[in-house]
Amino acid sequence: MITESDVQKLIAIVGEDNVSQRQADLDAHSVDESWVDPHIPEVVVWPSSAQQVSEIVRYANERRLPVVPWAGGSSLEGNPVPVCGGILLAMYRMNRILNINEDDLQVTVEPGVIYDELNAQLRRLGMFFPPAPGSSDVANIGGMVANNSSGMRTVKYGVTRDYVQRLEVVLPSGEIVHLGSNAIKTTSGYDLLGLMIGSEGTLGVVTEITLRVVGAPEQVAAVVAVFDELDDATATVYDCIRSGLDPSAIEFLDEGTVRVTNQQQGLHLRETPTLFIEFHGNQADIEEQVEYLRELCEENGCTDFQAAMTAEDREQLWAARSEAHDSIKFSHPGAVMIAGDVCVPISKFGALVHFVHDLAQRMNLPIYAFGHAGDGNLHTETIAHREDAEEFARGIQATDEIIKHGLALGGTVAGEHGVGLAKREYMALEHGNSLEIMKAIKHLLDPNGIMNPGKVFMD
Amino acid sequence: MITESDVQKLIAIVGEDNVSQRQADLDAHSVDESWVDPHIPEVVVWPSSAQQVSEIVRYANERRLPVVPWAGGSSLEGNPVPVCGGILLAMYRMNRILNINEDDLQVTVEPGVIYDELNAQLRRLGMFFPPAPGSSDVANIGGMVANNSSGMRTVKYGVTRDYVQRLEVVLPSGEIVHLGSNAIKTTSGYDLLGLMIGSEGTLGVVTEITLRVVGAPEQVAAVVAVFDELDDATATVYDCIRSGLDPSAIEFLDEGTVRVTNQQQGLHLRETPTLFIEFHGNQADIEEQVEYLRELCEENGCTDFQAAMTAEDREQLWAARSEAHDSIKFSHPGAVMIAGDVCVPISKFGALVHFVHDLAQRMNLPIYAFGHAGDGNLHTETIAHREDAEEFARGIQATDEIIKHGLALGGTVAGEHGVGLAKREYMALEHGNSLEIMKAIKHLLDPNGIMNPGKVFMD
Repeated sequence: MITESDVQKLIAIVGEDNVSQRQADLDAHSVDESWVDPHIPEVVVWPSSAQQVSEIVRYANERRLPVVPWAGGSSLEGNPVPVCGGILLAMYRMNRILNINEDDLQVTVEPGVIYDELNAQLRRLGMFFPPAPGSSDVANIGGMVANNSSGMRTVKYGVTRDYVQRLEVVLPSGEIVHLGSNAIKTTSGYDLLGLMIGSEGTLGVVTEITLRVVGAPEQVAAVVAVFDELDDATATVYDCIRSGLDPSAIEFLDEGTVRVTNQQQGLHLRETPTLFIEFHGNQADIEEQVEYLRELCEENGCTDFQAAMTAEDREQLWAARSEAHDSIKFSHPGAVMIAGDVCVPISKFGALVHFVHDLAQRMNLPIYAFGHAGDGNLHTETIAHREDAEEFARGIQATDEIIKHGLALGGTVAGEHGVGLAKREYMALEHGNSLEIMKAIKHLLDPNGIMNPGKVFMD
Repeated sequence: MITESDVQKLIAIVGEDNVSQRQADLDAHSVDESWVDPHIPEVVVWPSSAQQVSEIVRYANERRLPVVPWAGGSSLEGNPVPVCGGILLAMYRMNRILNINEDDLQVTVEPGVIYDELNAQLRRLGMFFPPAPGSSDVANIGGMVANNSSGMRTVKYGVTRDYVQRLEVVLPSGEIVHLGSNAIKTTSGYDLLGLMIGSEGTLGVVTEITLRVVGAPEQVAAVVAVFDELDDATATVYDCIRSGLDPSAIEFLDEGTVRVTNQQQGLHLRETPTLFIEFHGNQADIEEQVEYLRELCEENGCTDFQAAMTAEDREQLWAARSEAHDSIKFSHPGAVMIAGDVCVPISKFGALVHFVHDLAQRMNLPIYAFGHAGDGNLHTETIAHREDAEEFARGIQATDEIIKHGLALGGTVAGEHGVGLAKREYMALEHGNSLEIMKAIKHLLDPNGIMNPGKVFMD
C-alpha cells in the first residue's frame, strides 16, 4: 500500500506536476485494449529521465512497492494493467527522438516515441522502422520493445528484436545498465539485449532505445486477391512463402473480417476469404514478383486479383487492415472481444483457420480470424457478452481450444501480443520445465518481485 | 582431478569405445585455430545422445568436474580449449540430420553435423542455411550455435541466432530442456533461446537443433571490384549499404590479403584493395543491382570491375576468400597469428582499416585486414613469432590497440568469433556494469562452474 510519505517521495523525485492520484488518471491507466478487468494503480508517475526512473525504482524496491511501466496502453493481453496496484510508471512523456544517425541507419529514441511519429520523421530522410504493429498510431517504441512487437511487415523485415541495437535499462535494483552495441552484429557475451526485449516490463524499465532502421523501398506494390474458398486463400499464402517470393506483407482476412472492414472502413470488398499482399523493392523485381504471385493465385482459384493500385488506394487498404481490431469492436458494441494470437508453422496455417471456423459453429459464437498469414500468426477475436455468464464462459473456452490446438500444431501461444495476464496459464503447457529457468531469471533480477508483478508467470 | 572411478563411470554411460585417455586423443582436443596455448583435457568422451550427455553432466556436476563441449575445433579465440582440464565432451559423432521438414523450411539436426554437409543435403531440395562461416568445411552446427557464428552471407541473411527455431539443451544440472518454437515468431516468455545461442558452452550443452532454412536463390551474380586506394574501396562498401543495395556478400581484402590469396589459392588478382561482392535474387533484380553497383564503383574510382562470372569462377573466388585465414597461415610458417574480430558501425569501417594499416607500420609487424565489410566486421591477423618475446608482445599490443580503437568507434570486441579465452579481458571495457548480469546468469544456471570454465569471464 502506497502511503502519503511514498507520494511525497515521488513528488520529490519528479515534481508535483508529474505525480497524480486523481481518479481520472488512475482510471486512464487501469485497462489496455484487452478484455482483462480494470485494475486501478495507486499512483501515476510521469518520469522524464532515466535518472528519475532509477530513483523511483530504487525507492520502490526498498519499500517493496509494485512498479508497472506503461507505454501506449494498446496491448491486448493486459500486459501493463496494474493488477497489484502500486506505482504506474507512465513513460509516454519521455518522447524525444534523441539522435538520427543517418550514416549508420540508426536512431536513438526515448521510450515514449510513437511508432507512426518516428516513421514520419524517418520518411523525410528516406528511412523507416519496419515492424508495423496494428496499433501503429498509438504504440510507443518502449512498449514495442517490452512486447517484442511485430505486425504486417514482419514476413519480410522481422520483429522489433531484430532492430534493437542498444538499450538503456533501469534494473529492478535501480541500477542503470547499457546493453547491446552499435555494431550490426556481436558475439561479445550473453544476449542480454534479447532477454530484455519481450520481457514485458518484468525485468526492468527501458529508458532509451537505439534502433537500426532500413532504407525506404524504391517502389511499393499492393495486391488484393479474393478467393471463394478458404483453402484456396491459405494454399496461396503457403505457396507464396514456399516458392521464395519475398512479400513485405501477406495479410489474411476471413469472410467475417472483410464484412466488418467494409462496414466500418468504407471499403467495398467481396465478402469472401481475402489476402492483402504487398511488395517492396525495385521496379523490375516487384513486377516480376507480382506476375509470379498472379500465377500462384490463378493456380489456386483466385477469383479476383487487383494489382498496382495507387498510393492512396494502398494507404486505405493498409489502414483498413490495421483497423481490423477496431472494426470488429465497433460492430459489436457492448460485447467483449477475447483475443487469440496463436502463431503456427506456416504449413499449419490453413488447418488452424479451419479449426477456428468449425469451432465458431460448434460454440455458436462469432469468431473473427485474420492476421499475418505469412508468419503463420492468426489473430482471432471471439465475441461474447460479459453479462451473459454462460456465453462468456463459452467465449473463454473457445479461445482456450484455439490456443491448445495451436500448440498441438507446433505453434506458440503468443505470436506478437506477449503473455501479459491473459496467457500466463498456458506458459507451462508451451514451455515445460524451461519455464523454471525464466522464473529463476526473473527472481535473480527482481528478487522482491516489484516489476510489473502478476504478469507472464502464474506464481 | 579425474579419478579412475570417474573414468569407469563415464565408460558405464557411453561405453568403452567412447572414452579415451590416450595422449593422441587428448592432444587432438587441446587446441583450436587460435594462438591460445594448448591445454590438455583429462579424458575425452564421445556421447551419442542427449540422455548420455545428461548423465555425464549430472555426474560431473556432483563431482565438480569441468565439462568442455567440443564441436569442430575451428574456433579462433580458444573457445573450446579445456583450460581447467576435466572432461572433453566431443560432440561431433552426434552428426545425424534427424528431419528435413520441407513444408516449413525447417531442419532438425544433431550438433555434430558439419555446415557444408548440411548444405549439400539441403541443396538437392532447393534450400540452404545461409550464415556461411569461413570454416564452413569443418564448422559443426552445434559450434555455430554455441558461438552464434556468422560469415560471408550475414550482410543479407543474418547470423546463426536468426535461424534457430528450437534447441534441446542439457543444463549444467543435467536436466534436459527444450527451448523455442517451430513458429516463425513468438512472444511467449523470455528469450532463452537467444540467451543460450552464443553462450559458448558455458550455460549448457546443445544436443539437438532445429533451424529455419531459406530457399536457394534463383540466380547468383558475383563481382570483383579492384581499387587503387583503400579509401575508395571502403567508401564503396559504405555507399552500397547506405544506398539500399542488398548484396548477399561484400567482402573486403586488403593488399596483403590479396597477395597471400594469390600465392596460396592460385588466383591472379591485382594486389590492391579489393571487394568480392555477391547478389542473390531473380534475374531482373540482380541485373539491376549489378548495374547500380557498377555505377557506385565507378564513382568511387574502381579500376577494374569484373561481373557475371561462371559458377566455377564464383566457387573459386569464395573458396579463396574462405581460405584467407589459411592462406595467411601458410605464408608465415612458424609464426603465430593473433586474431582480431572487431565489428564497428558501418560508417566507421574505413577509419578502422586505416588505423590498422598505420598501426602495422608503427608496430613494424605484418597485419592482414580483411572481412565482412558489409557488416563492419574487420578480421585482422597480426603476425608474430612466439620465440621472439619482444615481437610477440608487440603483436599482442597491436591487437589490443585494434580492439580498443574498435570499441572507441562504437564497436564490439567480438563480431563473430565469440569471447573464448582470448577476449575475456575486454568484456568489462565493452559492457561495463551489465557484465555483472551475465556473470549472475552464469552463476544461476551453473552454480558449481563446471561448464566450459575459464571462458567468457575473467573470474
